[in-house]
Amino acid sequence: MNLIILEPGDFQSPASEPIPVATIRGRRLQHVLEVHRAEVGDALKVGLLNGEIGEGKVLRRDEQGITLEIALHRAPPPPLPLTLILALPRPKMLKRTIQHATALGVKKLYLINSYRVEKSYWQSPWLAEDQLREQCLLGLEQAVDTTMPQLELRKRFKPFVEDELPAIAADSVRLVAHPVTDTPCPVDIRQQTTLAVGPEGGFIPYEVEKLQEVGFLPVHLGPRILRVETALPVLLSRLFPAT
Amino acid sequence: MNLIILEPGDFQSPASEPIPVATIRGRRLQHVLEVHRAEVGDALKVGLLNGEIGEGKVLRRDEQGITLEIALHRAPPPPLPLTLILALPRPKMLKRTIQHATALGVKKLYLINSYRVEKSYWQSPWLAEDQLREQCLLGLEQAVDTTMPQLELRKRFKPFVEDELPAIAADSVRLVAHPVTDTPCPVDIRQQTTLAVGPEGGFIPYEVEKLQEVGFLPVHLGPRILRVETALPVLLSRLFPAT
Repeated sequence: MNLIILEPGDFQSPASEPIPVATIRGRRLQHVLEVHRAEVGDALKVGLLNGEIGEGKVLRRDEQGITLEIALHRAPPPPLPLTLILALPRPKMLKRTIQHATALGVKKLYLINSYRVEKSYWQSPWLAEDQLREQCLLGLEQAVDTTMPQLELRKRFKPFVEDELPAIAADSVRLVAHPVTDTPCPVDIRQQTTLAVGPEGGFIPYEVEKLQEVGFLPVHLGPRILRVETALPVLLSRLFPAT
Repeated sequence: MNLIILEPGDFQSPASEPIPVATIRGRRLQHVLEVHRAEVGDALKVGLLNGEIGEGKVLRRDEQGITLEIALHRAPPPPLPLTLILALPRPKMLKRTIQHATALGVKKLYLINSYRVEKSYWQSPWLAEDQLREQCLLGLEQAVDTTMPQLELRKRFKPFVEDELPAIAADSVRLVAHPVTDTPCPVDIRQQTTLAVGPEGGFIPYEVEKLQEVGFLPVHLGPRILRVETALPVLLSRLFPAT
């Protein structure tokens, strides 16, 4: 937790104190007590969810909560100019993938179905809204960011690609990561991009064709076949090395 | 397992058959029986450890082994022009980190001590030579590569940096990933590089100074703080996007 993310409900009524004051409890409190071991007067790095980043000075601490005097003064890092279309990872990888994508600055993420996504993956309890939100928060805390990603689930490949994707990808460069192609993934693209990444084993040819029909260009990452969890940071770093 | 890696001991005596024939057993056999479900006559992608890649045609199969007629015809992917100096990850991350680094094409890897590496990490059973070798093999199988990385352990930071590192890093670009610096990590460097990556929490200032004394330049990856497992593919993709 490199950043303590505050939500509006953490703040005391603005009328009560001239300077904003917030109290953290639960998981964040435990972390500050056990890892930071912050004392009264110490400053912690804090950010307001979907807002600015700054410091929180410890005013009071006990087992029930830590009360912080909040001063926010800088914007969060800029979002990647990217919409990520990702075949739903298996449950074991789902949490980690969401955390990594969020830490890397992805702000729009569609988890979609694909032939090689097992039906059972869609039953994962980790797909519940509050669980996904928690993984996004962990990614933001890690990366020192406050901007919550938008995350959407789409359980049917064809209607998504045919009916929704053209509007989602409008006015953007459209790429699909696909090991079996001759075109290398571009470097430092500096343009709004929509990137589709398949499941382990890749999109099947039919799916790649459907994506091509709506303007997606298959690109590869070199001779090595990477797991999705490795391919994702490699792709994003390659497309947006300076972000 | 995108590649079945053969070792010299898998081959039958060259005199016995005019075309090379190898028999796989154990973990590779289980994988082929359960995942590939290869039948007699099918071709599997195989490679000789530290050698070429090609096909293995199934001659015989039973529960004890699968015998393949081997034809090798292409070189493995080129290695990254990189020596990686990595603070020993915690045991939970160690296996995954070795697999990822191997899959990404790292061929020289030093796991070193650092102030923020807990002493207990050096007691991990996963540091045994055969365990490390197994993780490297898994990375090679994933990436479709055959060149085994060289992996070295160094339990003392200062003697390693002062006495060994100057020779290891000779004639290479020397970079240390460090979030607290103004210099961004270069992109597409196209030169032999020695890259030092700290533990979670980073190298301490003393360690960064010691690395600077032997010519390492601190570079950052942008405003986001990434976990080592995410930072590593990001760094390698940024330094060597075309490899």
